[in-house]
Amino acid sequence: MTTIDSLGEFGLIHKLSQLVPAPRHPDTVRGIGDDAAVIDTAGDEYLLVSTDMLLEGIHFDLMYMPLQHLGFKAVAVNVSDMAAMNGLPAQLTVSIGLSSRFTVEAVEEIYQGIAAACEAYNVDLVGGDTTASRTGLTISITVLGRVPKDRITYRSTAQPNDVICVTGDLGAAYLGLQLLEREKQVYLADPSMQPNLEEKAYLVQRQLRPDARTDIVHELRDLDIKPTAMIDISDGLASEILHLCTQSKTGAVIFDDTIPIDDQTYLTADEFKISPVTAALNGGEDYELLFTIQPQAFEKLKNHARITAIGYMTADPSQVVLATRAGQQTPIKAQGWKHF
Amino acid sequence: MTTIDSLGEFGLIHKLSQLVPAPRHPDTVRGIGDDAAVIDTAGDEYLLVSTDMLLEGIHFDLMYMPLQHLGFKAVAVNVSDMAAMNGLPAQLTVSIGLSSRFTVEAVEEIYQGIAAACEAYNVDLVGGDTTASRTGLTISITVLGRVPKDRITYRSTAQPNDVICVTGDLGAAYLGLQLLEREKQVYLADPSMQPNLEEKAYLVQRQLRPDARTDIVHELRDLDIKPTAMIDISDGLASEILHLCTQSKTGAVIFDDTIPIDDQTYLTADEFKISPVTAALNGGEDYELLFTIQPQAFEKLKNHARITAIGYMTADPSQVVLATRAGQQTPIKAQGWKHF
Repeated sequence: MTTIDSLGEFGLIHKLSQLVPAPRHPDTVRGIGDDAAVIDTAGDEYLLVSTDMLLEGIHFDLMYMPLQHLGFKAVAVNVSDMAAMNGLPAQLTVSIGLSSRFTVEAVEEIYQGIAAACEAYNVDLVGGDTTASRTGLTISITVLGRVPKDRITYRSTAQPNDVICVTGDLGAAYLGLQLLEREKQVYLADPSMQPNLEEKAYLVQRQLRPDARTDIVHELRDLDIKPTAMIDISDGLASEILHLCTQSKTGAVIFDDTIPIDDQTYLTADEFKISPVTAALNGGEDYELLFTIQPQAFEKLKNHARITAIGYMTADPSQVVLATRAGQQTPIKAQGWKHF
Repeated sequence: MTTIDSLGEFGLIHKLSQLVPAPRHPDTVRGIGDDAAVIDTAGDEYLLVSTDMLLEGIHFDLMYMPLQHLGFKAVAVNVSDMAAMNGLPAQLTVSIGLSSRFTVEAVEEIYQGIAAACEAYNVDLVGGDTTASRTGLTISITVLGRVPKDRITYRSTAQPNDVICVTGDLGAAYLGLQLLEREKQVYLADPSMQPNLEEKAYLVQRQLRPDARTDIVHELRDLDIKPTAMIDISDGLASEILHLCTQSKTGAVIFDDTIPIDDQTYLTADEFKISPVTAALNGGEDYELLFTIQPQAFEKLKNHARITAIGYMTADPSQVVLATRAGQQTPIKAQGWKHF
């Protein structure tokens, strides 16, 4: 008997993937192993499929997660997988499991958040399943997207010397979570204490209502830049750069002083005595895009306000390192989430 | 505050469907309201999408549900939705939430069942999500299927005088569940008692390892019969005929003595002092197909061993009735499942 804990989430997924029979349908272009599966439905576009399940007590805490935000976030994290393939979402299905402690009004709030996200990302809600649950709330979403065949971007196609870019800033969602957890403990100890998170609004919003970077998909198209590889940052920069390197069979150098980090993240990391770079590397839930481009394409992006170059790919797959300007290098290790 | 219980599952789904924005993508042919959503991806076929979530303690009890069967069943119930649109499955995604009481070996058993079903129904497992859960086991599956555009069959297109047909036999899965529940109570009272269900193998199998009727989709195609309307029987014949009638704006007469019921179901219904017709009408989980055909098409099916004519559609939507040969008619009411 093997505990799941002893294998870890990635170990378990690896073991299960070995039980999956090889695809037999000729239209299955790519199965497990990227941000989305890729299906050829004829025509100029591929169909993308991705699914995510959010469980109460694991992925969210209803003590501080408003139900509308939860509905929005459940959609956004799936849409983010479409963006990571350089595609856009089109349809989604939503399954919800609810225990009897939820009222009809509560379920309506979740759906209002889902509807708001469908509006924001231009997705049609086309199906789902609503069922009772013994305990807690479960939301499972599957999103279908489209990407022009000549624009699809996998994790496995980066080359040495490609520039590594990241959108937005990192680590904020993780510090938002730390703040919310701290306020929860304060509240539990003394329910008359009202949290004051106004000065930390950005961090809290990044945790509770993350945005998927479909805007970047449009912009890269307009700039006529096709990334050589891409992934979304759901588990932290460390874990994602390792995925890109493993699948592309490359190494990487990331410069610690180039990682984009918001001022609120810096200040709050200091409060919590956490290194802001560690929050960016291992925090997770930023839902930004991490991608690589050919060196000659970088000219077009170098003044982009929301895209930052943070390093470059190398030829040696055994060297995925964080470098200081002084030249010191430390190996990057995946931490990811440990829920089990 | 409104409890979900007071609205019921169908009431809740109706209320939530009003919050769903109208589809905006021109390729969304049909959203919520049938066994699957229908998407036009260009070419001669439609893409079908359906999703189902199974929760421990609601949809299955691991005291008598072997994990391999659970994996198989989770796929079969989704494949059944493809058959209900007159289509066949092609790809699926699987999300699993697991508490720490599950071992790696247990998860592997679930996946072996999923892989067996992928083999049986010729489906590619192309993606998924594996996550920790606070309590219990959750399986959420989304299946993608295909159907030639000129073969797609909705719930809403039956006409008065169409013949109502059903595949296989009904009520067995429900009695299988009653048997397993009874044996569970016996075992809990005295763990030295070993259940002997050999003579009831058919009923138990119908509950634990139902089969999706993709064979019927092939046969109807070979016979050049296109049903005028179709649905799969997941919640019992009563609930499904009411769906067909409501959406097609028809009434229906079903003859009680024509409903196909297996001998084991008869005998066991007697044991449990349940009417076998009630088990067929309200039992659920048979995963047979209920469909209507034009009267002139019936000639081709009338000697089919696994398809039974059980009545006909009528013009008056207010009359959905069960009739005895003596001429007595009683209204059919949906009971469905009440999990909340």
